[in-house]
Amino acid sequence: MTSFNPNEHPHRRYNPLLDEWILVSPHRAKRPWQGQKETLSEDNRPEHDADCYLCAGNVRANGVKNPDYTDCYVFENDFSALLTTEVNFESKEQSLFQLKPERGINKVVCFSPKHNLTLPEMEVEAIEKVVQTWKEQYLELGSHDFINYVQIFENKGSVMGCSNPHPHGQIWAQSSLPTQIEKTQKSLRAYYEKNKTSLLKDYLDQELKQRDRIVLENDHFAVLVPFWATWPYETIIISKRHFGNIIAMGNEETKSFAEIIKGITVKYDNLFETSFPYSSGIHQAPTDRVSHPEWHFHMHFYPPLLRSATVKKFMVGYEMLGEAQRDISPEQSAKILRDLPNQHYKTKTT
Amino acid sequence: MTSFNPNEHPHRRYNPLLDEWILVSPHRAKRPWQGQKETLSEDNRPEHDADCYLCAGNVRANGVKNPDYTDCYVFENDFSALLTTEVNFESKEQSLFQLKPERGINKVVCFSPKHNLTLPEMEVEAIEKVVQTWKEQYLELGSHDFINYVQIFENKGSVMGCSNPHPHGQIWAQSSLPTQIEKTQKSLRAYYEKNKTSLLKDYLDQELKQRDRIVLENDHFAVLVPFWATWPYETIIISKRHFGNIIAMGNEETKSFAEIIKGITVKYDNLFETSFPYSSGIHQAPTDRVSHPEWHFHMHFYPPLLRSATVKKFMVGYEMLGEAQRDISPEQSAKILRDLPNQHYKTKTT
Ligand SMILES: O=P(O)(O)O[C@H]1O[C@H](CO)[C@@H](O)[C@H](O)[C@H]1O
Ligand SMILES: O=P(O)(O)O[C@H]1O[C@H](CO)[C@@H](O)[C@H](O)[C@H]1O
Repeated sequence: MTSFNPNEHPHRRYNPLLDEWILVSPHRAKRPWQGQKETLSEDNRPEHDADCYLCAGNVRANGVKNPDYTDCYVFENDFSALLTTEVNFESKEQSLFQLKPERGINKVVCFSPKHNLTLPEMEVEAIEKVVQTWKEQYLELGSHDFINYVQIFENKGSVMGCSNPHPHGQIWAQSSLPTQIEKTQKSLRAYYEKNKTSLLKDYLDQELKQRDRIVLENDHFAVLVPFWATWPYETIIISKRHFGNIIAMGNEETKSFAEIIKGITVKYDNLFETSFPYSSGIHQAPTDRVSHPEWHFHMHFYPPLLRSATVKKFMVGYEMLGEAQRDISPEQSAKILRDLPNQHYKTKTT
Repeated sequence: MTSFNPNEHPHRRYNPLLDEWILVSPHRAKRPWQGQKETLSEDNRPEHDADCYLCAGNVRANGVKNPDYTDCYVFENDFSALLTTEVNFESKEQSLFQLKPERGINKVVCFSPKHNLTLPEMEVEAIEKVVQTWKEQYLELGSHDFINYVQIFENKGSVMGCSNPHPHGQIWAQSSLPTQIEKTQKSLRAYYEKNKTSLLKDYLDQELKQRDRIVLENDHFAVLVPFWATWPYETIIISKRHFGNIIAMGNEETKSFAEIIKGITVKYDNLFETSFPYSSGIHQAPTDRVSHPEWHFHMHFYPPLLRSATVKKFMVGYEMLGEAQRDISPEQSAKILRDLPNQHYKTKTT
């Protein structure tokens, strides 16, 4: 009988953060692709676009004029999915029809006034300002009585449902812990209670020894393709020190964090020499006024592309009904990302 | 204080099958959309396409010639994600790096030799043949020692990663229960043990009384937008009788099932007068030779479109990192689907 080879044989891997399994079919990337291709967005945007509702000085749909901001600019989402309104609600105890009103605040964070930039093309100092802004927002939003969790995220690229190429992210803050956070917290807590250590600290220590899934590291952070990654080039930034939220980062750590965000997003752009789409976001301790020694600050990157700038991985039938499935091994992806240059392809001197 | 209105106020709903919550923002569909639009696939396909590897009589990439089939045709996927190969594997007990080899069989099921048809455009008798084929496959695949679960599904439309418009679905059969099946089974079992009844039977009985989420029904099945639906026009077909798998369906039920599949897919096509994309699939009892009184046969439809034939719902940043989120209420969607004609728009006499 042949010996098992993780780069050749179908297998399942366990995601200890979400407590679920995924399917890996490393041999499958070889199949030809005749399906849908994404259209590349043209990449000659002006530094200021008079039609962009995020550019400095422009007027938004609701009549509000953006200030002439010079680094980050935060405002409440004009089309918020969550509202602060308190409503009268009588709950009927029905196990199969459970519903509860939800309150929250949605914000938009412009990363830069320059319409034609993206995180990988920004200076580290400018990314530091973004991290600083996230800190302020986590603190401010979390200070509301009715806000128990603050989700910071970015949808980059039209294939990720982003409707405006101006560099920006979002923050959704709310009363309940969202489903993915509940699950993650449950796993982190169970591990912490059992071992009195952080799951992600122990995990990162082992990854830093094994090295085959590490993409980049600096003094305070590492980026790696998690052992249980589902998206082809999914990565996670994990802090080397065990702390629970963005506020706990010192000045040096803040700078390192900005550096590693630049590092991984530059590699992403270099992969297919395109502005690489992804959804990314920070997972951190809730703001529910309870101590959370189990939480370990981290940031996920979920990019859809698989084979080229135009061919993505479809998480569809089997993935929706059965389980997440990937077509190359995490180790193969990590090696590809690790071997890419650290300088953005657009700034290459030839 | 305003009273809670589920068609107006943000709220969360509980999915008792997956044991997780989703966010409903019914007011949010009003926001303007400036983002990505899907391209419509041209819809003048020939009945037989010489370049299609699924059409009767054509030769596939691996040199195999398809027979001149007249209704359904099943073959092993030329690019299977799962393989039957048994491999030697030594498991190391490591909680953060868990992996196990997986065996399985992937099949392709052509629904019709006619390249230019789709389920909603097929006769009920022809859909009955498809259901018959699914029955045979469930039985045959499930009879293998190493197959414990059989996932029958369809990816329809290029936006769902379907690379060939020829009417077809897939079957992935494997040793382990996939993640979504494990979760569903856990919920069904807990409910069954507590109440000695089927969760979905009790749920359907209540829906048939309330009626506001019912889309269609016949003697043996109902289609409804589940109370906890995440995709804008997500539906579920539930059998009125409590049985666990497709084999348990009698002749009348088989016919009714074919009828209701036609019914819902015709409504879907009529919604935006387009060939409506979705991923669909049957959830049913495992083939693991254990009795499963908790299982209740059902079929999910997960369609991505939201506003029109070209604007889909993006399940991205918040949805991937926080929780699934929908922009109209399930009751609004159900009413829209219910009010659509039952005759396919292409066959309308004007
Ligand atoms: O098997 P196909 O049709 O080539 O591929 C499609 O369905 C599969 C099962 O849902 C997915 O894994 C693929 O990403 C998708 O493109
Ligand atoms: O808020 P936006 O950018 O308009 O919308 C985008 O991100 C949201 C949060 O992930 C999603 O709910 C939307 O489907 C997506 O199009």
